[in-house]
Amino acid sequence: MIIVMQQHASDAEISAVVDEIRKAGLQEHVSRGSELVIIGAIGDEDRINPGHFEIMAGVERVTRVTKQYKIVSRDSHPQGSVIKVRGIPIGGEQIQVISGPCSIETQDQMNVAADAVAAAGCRMMRGGAFKPRTSPYAFQGLGVEGLEYFQRAAERHKLPIVTELMDVRMLDTFMEYDVDVIQIGARNMQNFDLLKEVGRVNKPIILKRGLSATVNEWLMAAEYIAAGGNHNIIFCERGIRTFETAYRNVLDVTAIPVLKRETHLPVIVDPSHAGGKAWMVPALAQAAVAAGADGLLVEMHPNPCDAWCDADQALTPDELKSLMVTLGAIAKAVGRSI
Amino acid sequence: MIIVMQQHASDAEISAVVDEIRKAGLQEHVSRGSELVIIGAIGDEDRINPGHFEIMAGVERVTRVTKQYKIVSRDSHPQGSVIKVRGIPIGGEQIQVISGPCSIETQDQMNVAADAVAAAGCRMMRGGAFKPRTSPYAFQGLGVEGLEYFQRAAERHKLPIVTELMDVRMLDTFMEYDVDVIQIGARNMQNFDLLKEVGRVNKPIILKRGLSATVNEWLMAAEYIAAGGNHNIIFCERGIRTFETAYRNVLDVTAIPVLKRETHLPVIVDPSHAGGKAWMVPALAQAAVAAGADGLLVEMHPNPCDAWCDADQALTPDELKSLMVTLGAIAKAVGRSI
Amino acid sequence: MIIVMQQHASDAEISAVVDEIRKAGLQEHVSRGSELVIIGAIGDEDRINPGHFEIMAGVERVTRVTKQYKIVSRDSHPQGSVIKVRGIPIGGEQIQVISGPCSIETQDQMNVAADAVAAAGCRMMRGGAFKPRTSPYAFQGLGVEGLEYFQRAAERHKLPIVTELMDVRMLDTFMEYDVDVIQIGARNMQNFDLLKEVGRVNKPIILKRGLSATVNEWLMAAEYIAAGGNHNIIFCERGIRTFETAYRNVLDVTAIPVLKRETHLPVIVDPSHAGGKAWMVPALAQAAVAAGADGLLVEMHPNPCDAWCDADQALTPDELKSLMVTLGAIAKAVGRSI
Amino acid sequence: MIIVMQQHASDAEISAVVDEIRKAGLQEHVSRGSELVIIGAIGDEDRINPGHFEIMAGVERVTRVTKQYKIVSRDSHPQGSVIKVRGIPIGGEQIQVISGPCSIETQDQMNVAADAVAAAGCRMMRGGAFKPRTSPYAFQGLGVEGLEYFQRAAERHKLPIVTELMDVRMLDTFMEYDVDVIQIGARNMQNFDLLKEVGRVNKPIILKRGLSATVNEWLMAAEYIAAGGNHNIIFCERGIRTFETAYRNVLDVTAIPVLKRETHLPVIVDPSHAGGKAWMVPALAQAAVAAGADGLLVEMHPNPCDAWCDADQALTPDELKSLMVTLGAIAKAVGRSI
Repeated sequence: MIIVMQQHASDAEISAVVDEIRKAGLQEHVSRGSELVIIGAIGDEDRINPGHFEIMAGVERVTRVTKQYKIVSRDSHPQGSVIKVRGIPIGGEQIQVISGPCSIETQDQMNVAADAVAAAGCRMMRGGAFKPRTSPYAFQGLGVEGLEYFQRAAERHKLPIVTELMDVRMLDTFMEYDVDVIQIGARNMQNFDLLKEVGRVNKPIILKRGLSATVNEWLMAAEYIAAGGNHNIIFCERGIRTFETAYRNVLDVTAIPVLKRETHLPVIVDPSHAGGKAWMVPALAQAAVAAGADGLLVEMHPNPCDAWCDADQALTPDELKSLMVTLGAIAKAVGRSI
Repeated sequence: MIIVMQQHASDAEISAVVDEIRKAGLQEHVSRGSELVIIGAIGDEDRINPGHFEIMAGVERVTRVTKQYKIVSRDSHPQGSVIKVRGIPIGGEQIQVISGPCSIETQDQMNVAADAVAAAGCRMMRGGAFKPRTSPYAFQGLGVEGLEYFQRAAERHKLPIVTELMDVRMLDTFMEYDVDVIQIGARNMQNFDLLKEVGRVNKPIILKRGLSATVNEWLMAAEYIAAGGNHNIIFCERGIRTFETAYRNVLDVTAIPVLKRETHLPVIVDPSHAGGKAWMVPALAQAAVAAGADGLLVEMHPNPCDAWCDADQALTPDELKSLMVTLGAIAKAVGRSI
Repeated sequence: MIIVMQQHASDAEISAVVDEIRKAGLQEHVSRGSELVIIGAIGDEDRINPGHFEIMAGVERVTRVTKQYKIVSRDSHPQGSVIKVRGIPIGGEQIQVISGPCSIETQDQMNVAADAVAAAGCRMMRGGAFKPRTSPYAFQGLGVEGLEYFQRAAERHKLPIVTELMDVRMLDTFMEYDVDVIQIGARNMQNFDLLKEVGRVNKPIILKRGLSATVNEWLMAAEYIAAGGNHNIIFCERGIRTFETAYRNVLDVTAIPVLKRETHLPVIVDPSHAGGKAWMVPALAQAAVAAGADGLLVEMHPNPCDAWCDADQALTPDELKSLMVTLGAIAKAVGRSI
Repeated sequence: MIIVMQQHASDAEISAVVDEIRKAGLQEHVSRGSELVIIGAIGDEDRINPGHFEIMAGVERVTRVTKQYKIVSRDSHPQGSVIKVRGIPIGGEQIQVISGPCSIETQDQMNVAADAVAAAGCRMMRGGAFKPRTSPYAFQGLGVEGLEYFQRAAERHKLPIVTELMDVRMLDTFMEYDVDVIQIGARNMQNFDLLKEVGRVNKPIILKRGLSATVNEWLMAAEYIAAGGNHNIIFCERGIRTFETAYRNVLDVTAIPVLKRETHLPVIVDPSHAGGKAWMVPALAQAAVAAGADGLLVEMHPNPCDAWCDADQALTPDELKSLMVTLGAIAKAVGRSI
């Protein structure tokens, strides 16, 4: 940890800081500059609390130097991790496009959707049984009944299923219904009790980025899951909140190369929620793959006009099919396949 | 709902929209302007999904006109609501300053803190038994044991207690320990299952604003609680996330008059988390009261240097005492008391 | 314009609004809904000021329906515009990569840079003679002397030159030195006097997006230039400011498809300033082309370690060369060439 | 400057950094920690460019430790500066409320406005002759003619005048008309050529904060003015841009105590532009004074309904008068006067 002292900090103030560092079992390293004094605390940073130093007399500011995330850090695992979902690799040379409707509506809708997902060449399917809605009066999802429809429809094509978990109390049900990949939504990225629970199960977790979560907070949220023992974590960038009002969110493509550098875990992108409009999805999906994403989460509905939610952001089966063709060419351009 | 058609939208596209409106049991109202056609959908907006219209051919954009929040809206209750906590009013002429440490550490610390809270003239006490921490390796709070210390310390001064609930599974325990006011933290503002649960109990709820939640989303989160039957909701502004890095958050004082206009429920402010530094707290607390806040949530620790968390943002007992004096004068200036 | 009246607005308040609309020479269109009354003002919106209505008794809110930008709107020119710079098209099937150093340093540096730009297959060159620096004590650019070095170096390869204009008083000098494309920087996007001046010359203008400019404000800034008679405007997305601190800016790829839909003018991207680090540039440049950008502005320095500014974001000549190869393949994947 | 090396950085990489530091004439200070090596560069930081180090092999990140602003820093002038405008102090015990219309319209409007400003007890007047408008088709201000009306009206009450300068070419005219305080608007906060010019004149400058300028960028913009020789700078917080859409800007009250700590110069607040609605102004103005602002810039119009711009944010003369009474009481509560 680095402690920058204020200009004119007294020797007494400096030695008080040094004492605190020693008390914590670390070693101090004092640099007296032309204008100010800088004190380095050498040793296990996790044993000292920056806050304690920030309020000491004469301290200008305190900065950590080591990262707080350990298990998810690339330092702990220099080569990238490949997560297998029923044999399908996420994080390797092959890019995975996970598609399906925003919400599960009927058995029939899910069957047609599953056919379209498979027909487009996607290997995994998404669908929401429990929906986080801004309004308590909006459709909240079919719940368990939806999971049944989903399982039945996906099995016809042996498609592993991805669905969102919102409530810790539903985790057992998810295990029962053998959900293949559990998604933690943006609004729950820092629902720490939920993170701890999914850290105890042996299922891959897609961790969506919070609407205004920094990359560091996101990595720390993953660390919560990893600390519980579950290292099968997939980051999903889904657009961040900014000042711009012309579109729902801003897809943060920069987060892709940055995360790939910081963590060994796979990074996928949800272009559907990022843009909020179906017509934006192809451009955003293409950008994500070109920037190095390991996969995509794309909303597709057999008949968008009849969708029970987010009707305006779902692709049609045909749009998904042609998007897959373009994505294949881009993947090839960046040395990967789809 | 208002549907603005694109320039050059065809008559066929216009009548398709009209048909959709009628199908939903609403009435259309078509205005043909010089440049474009605007269609108003008259009737119960909640019966139509904007998304359905946004993807129809020829539609430029769709706007709701009625508010989605009903129970918490001031329209439903023009005069302000006063929430009583063991007889102490929140939302009336008297401003309530709720103070105490960030986290509960020991019985002794809580006793001294309770003495200081009472001595400063505050009528309610805060303290955290369950702490939402960015790092899984940071102190997570004492849990139930902490609630015991808290209760014991607060009772000596008959101070109602306020503490944060993070996990739906702990709600029964909170009821058992007779927590007076349940706080929902910023990270859980859109933890909809948690909101639904606290909507079923008969306890006042302090609903903190999410780090980047809009006022509208915040009101909708409160509506989740209200829809469950619990109308005793207190909004708490605690600073929002922006581009600024010189301080942790930006206290959004504008939200105070805006909320007071939109809802009949009380609005309090947490200047401690907003600024993140004890030296900023007085200025922010004073600004909040001057802007019309109904109360404050202020962190105070008997000995900040030894605080187990957020040491740098806690006031000392003496600082709290002198702040209360200034706040009293400002309250008087705006026609209230403390 | 649409005026939504408050619930319980009186008939008197409604007719007062109607009178105002008529006074402005527009026609009113009143829709009485179940909950509220909506009034449409039909006619030339530019003749009424929303503010006047917003303060009238009983008015809830006012919304414009027509766009304020006319000349730059795609409505005025449905097919895209192709801007020619000494015969080189921007906005057509061919994507233009404009490269060169952040700042002009020496004749030698510029000569080597020009050779590298041409060798990589780029057709235009960039370089800064006048630098907007956050600090008054930082290198401010070589000024006119720099323009000379730039011209001489670029001419050896017949590369049109792009450079930034900061001060209206330098415009004549830019014309004298026959700068091919004038760049307006992010900090000057709303320097309206500067926009008016470049609207009077007959040179293509690259208009960079302000750090936190909305797409609408950006289009209006272009309208300032266009209103002066100069329609040769090229939008340049260069990253926006958000809460994220892990990288300098967030490249807003969503703005690319959105702008292409809203305006007929070309849209290019500056991945160098967006990321702020050379190692991020390839991923961002690739994302931009995949998302539909018409060109790129990429910083390259013969020897980044010796660059006088932004040393950490410049590519080396070799990095530029190999990036061009990947970009070519992505361009092909999206039906374009480079 | 502090250079944090990557984990596993080699000795060769470390000594390369050390050599660079020495080359720049500074001294290195190497701390070998358990996990990483930290190198301090002791000496004049302005002689080294962080970018050069950030691209060196093995470097994780580089941080400046000294501030880049010198003249405006409180370190250079511990006690606060009081700026006198025709004898009226800004920055002392007395708080100055500068009021007047958004834009100058007619001689009559200005006369009535000046009477109201004086009647309310304000000692300075504001008014816009040159208006920065988002649309080129909106009223751009009366220009020089407006300055004449303004001077004549204000003189009747000996009120010093404050007006905005947008174009360097108009500076002489401003001097001619003897404008008392020159305002630099938010959109021009980083119009460096304009800052340099006003740095050469002997007039107080009100420097508005850019819509998304950090406190540090704002201080650096002031340093541009100060570096030219003009130290009479007044910071004006006018609301920042965030994700919130319920109001135009978010008034950043936290910036007040932070700036007062960082700089010796006065800090005032513009509650009118921050909120964008007249009904929000009192709450924001009160918050600003309670938080320690040295003054306010408040829009007032003799007849808001007829205002040529921002009609919805101007107070009436009566509203200004009663606001002054409340502000007086709050000023007293925080140990100041009005």
